[in-house]
Amino acid sequence: MPFDLTDLLHTLRQTAVERDRQGGHATFEKAQIREAGLLRLAIPQEHGGLALPWPDIYRLVRQLAAVDSSLAHLLAFHQLQVATVLIYGNAEQQRRWLRRTADEQGWWGNALNPRDTRLLAEGEGPSFVLDGTKGFCSGTRGSSYMTVSARHPDGDQPVLGILATQTPGISVQEDWDPIGQRQTDSGSVRFDRVLLAGADVMRDHHTPPTVFHTLRNCLAQLVLVNLYLGIAQGAQQEARQYAHAEGRPWIAAAVDRATEDPYLLNRMGDMQAQIAAATALAERASQAVQAAWERGQSLTAAQRGEVALAVAEAKVIAHRAGLFASQELFEVVGSRGTRASLGYDRFWRNVRTHTLHDPLDYKLQTLGRWALNGELPQPANYS
Amino acid sequence: MPFDLTDLLHTLRQTAVERDRQGGHATFEKAQIREAGLLRLAIPQEHGGLALPWPDIYRLVRQLAAVDSSLAHLLAFHQLQVATVLIYGNAEQQRRWLRRTADEQGWWGNALNPRDTRLLAEGEGPSFVLDGTKGFCSGTRGSSYMTVSARHPDGDQPVLGILATQTPGISVQEDWDPIGQRQTDSGSVRFDRVLLAGADVMRDHHTPPTVFHTLRNCLAQLVLVNLYLGIAQGAQQEARQYAHAEGRPWIAAAVDRATEDPYLLNRMGDMQAQIAAATALAERASQAVQAAWERGQSLTAAQRGEVALAVAEAKVIAHRAGLFASQELFEVVGSRGTRASLGYDRFWRNVRTHTLHDPLDYKLQTLGRWALNGELPQPANYS
Amino acid sequence: MPFDLTDLLHTLRQTAVERDRQGGHATFEKAQIREAGLLRLAIPQEHGGLALPWPDIYRLVRQLAAVDSSLAHLLAFHQLQVATVLIYGNAEQQRRWLRRTADEQGWWGNALNPRDTRLLAEGEGPSFVLDGTKGFCSGTRGSSYMTVSARHPDGDQPVLGILATQTPGISVQEDWDPIGQRQTDSGSVRFDRVLLAGADVMRDHHTPPTVFHTLRNCLAQLVLVNLYLGIAQGAQQEARQYAHAEGRPWIAAAVDRATEDPYLLNRMGDMQAQIAAATALAERASQAVQAAWERGQSLTAAQRGEVALAVAEAKVIAHRAGLFASQELFEVVGSRGTRASLGYDRFWRNVRTHTLHDPLDYKLQTLGRWALNGELPQPANYS
Amino acid sequence: MPFDLTDLLHTLRQTAVERDRQGGHATFEKAQIREAGLLRLAIPQEHGGLALPWPDIYRLVRQLAAVDSSLAHLLAFHQLQVATVLIYGNAEQQRRWLRRTADEQGWWGNALNPRDTRLLAEGEGPSFVLDGTKGFCSGTRGSSYMTVSARHPDGDQPVLGILATQTPGISVQEDWDPIGQRQTDSGSVRFDRVLLAGADVMRDHHTPPTVFHTLRNCLAQLVLVNLYLGIAQGAQQEARQYAHAEGRPWIAAAVDRATEDPYLLNRMGDMQAQIAAATALAERASQAVQAAWERGQSLTAAQRGEVALAVAEAKVIAHRAGLFASQELFEVVGSRGTRASLGYDRFWRNVRTHTLHDPLDYKLQTLGRWALNGELPQPANYS
Repeated sequence: MPFDLTDLLHTLRQTAVERDRQGGHATFEKAQIREAGLLRLAIPQEHGGLALPWPDIYRLVRQLAAVDSSLAHLLAFHQLQVATVLIYGNAEQQRRWLRRTADEQGWWGNALNPRDTRLLAEGEGPSFVLDGTKGFCSGTRGSSYMTVSARHPDGDQPVLGILATQTPGISVQEDWDPIGQRQTDSGSVRFDRVLLAGADVMRDHHTPPTVFHTLRNCLAQLVLVNLYLGIAQGAQQEARQYAHAEGRPWIAAAVDRATEDPYLLNRMGDMQAQIAAATALAERASQAVQAAWERGQSLTAAQRGEVALAVAEAKVIAHRAGLFASQELFEVVGSRGTRASLGYDRFWRNVRTHTLHDPLDYKLQTLGRWALNGELPQPANYS
Repeated sequence: MPFDLTDLLHTLRQTAVERDRQGGHATFEKAQIREAGLLRLAIPQEHGGLALPWPDIYRLVRQLAAVDSSLAHLLAFHQLQVATVLIYGNAEQQRRWLRRTADEQGWWGNALNPRDTRLLAEGEGPSFVLDGTKGFCSGTRGSSYMTVSARHPDGDQPVLGILATQTPGISVQEDWDPIGQRQTDSGSVRFDRVLLAGADVMRDHHTPPTVFHTLRNCLAQLVLVNLYLGIAQGAQQEARQYAHAEGRPWIAAAVDRATEDPYLLNRMGDMQAQIAAATALAERASQAVQAAWERGQSLTAAQRGEVALAVAEAKVIAHRAGLFASQELFEVVGSRGTRASLGYDRFWRNVRTHTLHDPLDYKLQTLGRWALNGELPQPANYS
Repeated sequence: MPFDLTDLLHTLRQTAVERDRQGGHATFEKAQIREAGLLRLAIPQEHGGLALPWPDIYRLVRQLAAVDSSLAHLLAFHQLQVATVLIYGNAEQQRRWLRRTADEQGWWGNALNPRDTRLLAEGEGPSFVLDGTKGFCSGTRGSSYMTVSARHPDGDQPVLGILATQTPGISVQEDWDPIGQRQTDSGSVRFDRVLLAGADVMRDHHTPPTVFHTLRNCLAQLVLVNLYLGIAQGAQQEARQYAHAEGRPWIAAAVDRATEDPYLLNRMGDMQAQIAAATALAERASQAVQAAWERGQSLTAAQRGEVALAVAEAKVIAHRAGLFASQELFEVVGSRGTRASLGYDRFWRNVRTHTLHDPLDYKLQTLGRWALNGELPQPANYS
Repeated sequence: MPFDLTDLLHTLRQTAVERDRQGGHATFEKAQIREAGLLRLAIPQEHGGLALPWPDIYRLVRQLAAVDSSLAHLLAFHQLQVATVLIYGNAEQQRRWLRRTADEQGWWGNALNPRDTRLLAEGEGPSFVLDGTKGFCSGTRGSSYMTVSARHPDGDQPVLGILATQTPGISVQEDWDPIGQRQTDSGSVRFDRVLLAGADVMRDHHTPPTVFHTLRNCLAQLVLVNLYLGIAQGAQQEARQYAHAEGRPWIAAAVDRATEDPYLLNRMGDMQAQIAAATALAERASQAVQAAWERGQSLTAAQRGEVALAVAEAKVIAHRAGLFASQELFEVVGSRGTRASLGYDRFWRNVRTHTLHDPLDYKLQTLGRWALNGELPQPANYS
């Protein structure tokens, strides 16, 4: 791996509890991530980037998520928007926007949430005027550039484009205040008759996505997998550290040290098994994504379906591992581990918030359609 | 039931999210509870109280816990200290302190935590001097009276007594800042050479507890049961309300309304089954406690063991129902239900904090000793 | 309780493993049950019966199920058919058939399975000719009488009647060979133009059920609850007995006896908690059934709905307790407990077979409709 | 893969239900497996074998286990004994016994169960006389050769050797009659003063195992993983097939076909996720085993510990997937799927029997020692 995050992770961990409490925008920490060079991971070398394979990128995201899953989300979604330009954009757009990203090392945000259809595109192209609002715009606050999708009254596809965040008419709202993932800058963005130039339109309202285009959903879902998994690992790390530093055996225990308690050992062992399972599936899925990525526009629907299946399997197991570990952490640390200064509840709040991105039940249904009826996942916004 | 809490609960619910955020002392709300007459529930009629049976008291605690489990904890622990005076105190102590409680309607706190042995009793009796600190003194901040236990260097039992909270030398610390159950006033209390008069000593360091004395542990454990259960019910209520008010069917769902989604129905049904089970066991246990209570000093060890068993069974199931419902709530409300203003995470934080009071694993072990070896739970601090 | 089953249960347990292996008809054991007087439990005293309250009957069924859940099923379904005559039949039918039952102490079977619509009723009444086949006719093999339902081409209700099993044209098939509940005599019955006399028609094809009629479904569902629960208790009993008689601590265990192993204790404790929960709900439901039973035709739809709700809650928890205990039994007994001569797998096969009577998922949905939408269970064949 | 098992699996599936019922020895089917050439998989090419890498061998075992986990156990344990000769034996022993195996294509059995210490080795070497009995001798009935371990009164290690099964004094008992894994030929073997020639002693009672020697335990544990996983896959396959062939939607379902039922889809999806997790871990573990295998005597304790960890993680997840799928199968097929002729309970009986090989709780403890205390699994008989 070209990156050793040890120092950065150590630094970020010092402030993670306090930043979770405050919420809002992590100006300083986003600058640190930028200075560590992490905004160029996914950019092709020809445009000044590192062109790291996806398995490496996801592993870095996972490591960061163990310490701070909000920042990990920001880092991952930055890479995802870079990937979005590589997937949807033409060669000129890729060259122009990604070279600029590599040079400036600016952050990418997005206004793509498909369930929010309030943002409209007007005009017949090649340029459009955007008007309205988008919610859940992760990473846009503090960003330099953004991807955007807007509903067009006359088309059955959204208009997809790229904008500098400072474009006149764009106002990023500071309205993100959730119970978890509090520093993901995922508030809403208002567009007041914003011009989307034809040169920055990646796909218009008449053009259906290619198979390769729909690989983006797999990339996005795999971000979630690695965030859930990183959170599980972070919870397990804190449990281990606390048990050694402050653990006391229960009064009814027949052992001298908490770290020899048979029940604590099994709870840690159970976390270990679940994290191992999620890790194995996450790795398998990122290898599959990478192989599909390298196929580019020659990617077939069946190949894409296999990737989506691997991602969905990983997502179910990581979802459960994350909720399990973040709840079990407390059985290991016990009642004295509930003081607010430790902030151990942040793992559960983060994973509980983020695992609602799309419902587990419908992900299981997707897997069931494969298992029962042999139907591969169909490209859709969440699969 | 002599009490209809509807209005009080409605009022408390309006401020529950904000108070959870702030933590600290609920001065105003504790006054409301006092004015509702709820501090006299457990006091015998001869001392000016209502002498409500324990099943009724626990039901009121549970109702309150559905809305605010911190206040419910305070209310329940007040009753528990009244019960402590009735269990450990002599007739004169009961008359004097409980009559005063009924007249003044003051709150009871406690400094009884058995795992914290820093508070020492000095002297040979009948009076003692108390010196040191106790942690986890639920309800003591803002209280008028308190029960106290102190380790004596020469005895194998703690000294148990009663003190007015305003007694010189007592300083209640404002150091309670946990992730859940934030307004239970469970900080530490410092005793700087505080005189415990002989007339207020309930049990000295040479006197072992009677069987009836140890019923107090069952009363205390059953408080936890009803808090966990109330939290589960509160989470379910919020899920229902949100689903009707704001629920939207998932894009892949084949239904028009969220309230018809087959998966949401089953998650709500699963909560329902688990809450029903916990309720049935909580009711059975409170009936058993009441019967044992009425036996008084004639309570046998075997009878007490049966009560402890019923309480332990209820505790395991309520523990799980509480964690389950507070986590599943989010699967019902979905991602838009994670905004901080809704404060839905308080249910999980509250139950996760409180379920660590004593470890689930050792409660299961207690049940296992009965199931496998026919050993009834032995009186101990947590069983 | 007017019955002490200790001796009978002891006797039946001696042969339970072998009879499970053989399957087929338990001629000898059914005679023993009959001789113990258990076929008169539900018959009114005016007709020569014991008129035991339903909670007592269900408790006897549960005790028997812990030893042999096939025989318990037969015993319970006998009572259920007696109840069916009391619910659907007129005074004359009740007098005639139940007096005869009390006098002869004959077994009741049934041919009522609502999902099997192959049996037709011909004619316009008051008598009908029955022709066709019914499956899942529990208890009919070896019975003296039976209840029967048949689809009528011109009505929207089934024709319900009573027949002596020896009636010409009835042939009971010996085709019941399942993986569990192997001696419940639940094969199919063929009707070759069998005359159902008008005097034995309880309800014709034009008469809709009253609310009280639909209480029968609750009685039937509560049979299942108590069978599942009895199986769980039986599995737990065998686990305990084996652990004491043959248990050896695992080589990595830090204890001298298997009965002190911390993990075995917790597995037994977990069974204990789940069985306690199912028991509390089963008792609550049988009290509700009894109260509704005593209301008779004055039972309202809302009252009936509350009963159905209590039964459904009990069913979900007993279903899970049964599967859990019958599977966990093996974690307690270990690999040497898998020898066929012990027959410990019969608990799981029995409960796995019987818990499929109607799907858990749709029972949860029923509970969810109540929890989410306030809809009481509607009378239907399985609720 | 050099083998296509499709035809063999198809043939074996036809008789699997009936053979499970009968138990005993699968003479004909073992001959088929032999004729398919599967007994030479693990033998080095220099001795006439195929030298298949372990990941390939385990995959073949898993495929067979989906159809018949008893035969899969026999096949896997045959390879394991070949591996045992390769691990413990000297070059001459390997050449002599494995060449003979390749030539004759005989089956290997074993008498190695470490918990059964009744078999004694007498004498001081180089040859020994074996006397006594061993239980759980999988595969020995019908075998040509066997590995054997015997306790020596004067040593702290067992004597390990090789015997032809026909050696005078050896009598294989036909006493294997369990509830599952019924055709694994795992009965006991009596040794009546059997001579173990010095040339066939692999390790004597004074020689401690090397690190590489202890890799055998990992190979053995990984057999179990793949059997559990194969059983899960087999259960899922049967569920799918039945749902399409015979499935009917439940009367309360809002769908036309069982294969569209939202709950069945999710149950199948849950199986899918768990099987995927177990598969990913099983593959990772078999790669680790292969790498360690290739290291031979240069394998370090830490490397061996990492392999054991990977195997243990896979074992926990496969254990759960096996129990889950074999129980959930029935929720998919419903009550009509319980007829004995389908024999669907064999999956649960097989996996329930085999998952008791060594206790799950102590495997979790092993994982917990790593997760909490950084201790790698120590070489022992079950880790």
